[in-house]
Amino acid sequence: MPHDQALIVARDGALRATLTGHTNRGHAVAIAPDGTWLATASADKTARIWAADGALRATLTGHTAVVDAAAIAADGTWLATAGRDNTARIWAASG
Amino acid sequence: MPHDQALIVARDGALRATLTGHTNRGHAVAIAPDGTWLATASADKTARIWAADGALRATLTGHTAVVDAAAIAADGTWLATAGRDNTARIWAASG
Amino acid sequence: MPHDQALIVARDGALRATLTGHTNRGHAVAIAPDGTWLATASADKTARIWAADGALRATLTGHTAVVDAAAIAADGTWLATAGRDNTARIWAASG
Amino acid sequence: MPHDQALIVARDGALRATLTGHTNRGHAVAIAPDGTWLATASADKTARIWAADGALRATLTGHTAVVDAAAIAADGTWLATAGRDNTARIWAASG
Repeated sequence: MPHDQALIVARDGALRATLTGHTNRGHAVAIAPDGTWLATASADKTARIWAADGALRATLTGHTAVVDAAAIAADGTWLATAGRDNTARIWAASG
Repeated sequence: MPHDQALIVARDGALRATLTGHTNRGHAVAIAPDGTWLATASADKTARIWAADGALRATLTGHTAVVDAAAIAADGTWLATAGRDNTARIWAASG
Repeated sequence: MPHDQALIVARDGALRATLTGHTNRGHAVAIAPDGTWLATASADKTARIWAADGALRATLTGHTAVVDAAAIAADGTWLATAGRDNTARIWAASG
Repeated sequence: MPHDQALIVARDGALRATLTGHTNRGHAVAIAPDGTWLATASADKTARIWAADGALRATLTGHTAVVDAAAIAADGTWLATAGRDNTARIWAASG
């Protein structure tokens, strides 16, 4: 039985995925330039890498306080975060 | 009767549109790479998609708390938000 | 008398300009893709457009509360802001 | 003796470097378009430029209050910051 899923996906603002895992509020989100993954920064002291379909790929642990910001390098091989532990951190990503 | 609208539009900083609809403060704004639409994230628990002329195209509901951040994918077909409900969310956009 | 100004300009982190005019804290800064201008969003309820040398080009008035975020379109002809007055606003820029 | 460093570097989310030096929380991070350096903005009233391997290249002093935001120009030769001292500042970078 055909259905209207394609139509729904194309509709502006349709929810595709809810990314759960963070245990505290999210402060930042960045999308890799090739659109295959994204990163979030959270008050739970972690950043996380997610596939574009919403699957969790990695939890970035190391910050000892809230992570306030995240940015992804243009070539998609690394990202950087800044936190309330007075550090910034650089993390590998496989693109 | 001709007038100076073209001149006004070109002037730095002229207000082109006021985008109303959010019922609480805005936290973030992102513009699609092709410049045809933009997205806002708000403390009203929604994100919104607007056409570049300011027309509301979609209200993205699902977050159960303040939406703190938004980013748009380079191909303009989706966006991601992060919120105080400990989730990030991925939404379709039709470009 | 020759001096080392060129050397100083090239040195990482040398201060080139201080942009004064905002009467309250700055919340966001965005640089136009062609690098000729930038925009700031401030708690003084305005956004401002500055030339890359730091000269003020325009004060964007309209928001009735703190301006939290700003983004510049890829073609450099407009920018968008989001504020605590529950609105987003679109402004012309002449690139 | 061969080891698995290459494998570790490629793994999503592996920590490559911890950037220490800021004496208060980080508010923002931006990566230069060519991926060779990044900038952070901090509540310690400074911004800092770091090489992509995490080495500190410059401490940008001048703001007299918390630095809330930072952006890097597309050609990588300068960056801009915004702070709670009501100023934005433009800084040289050597790319």
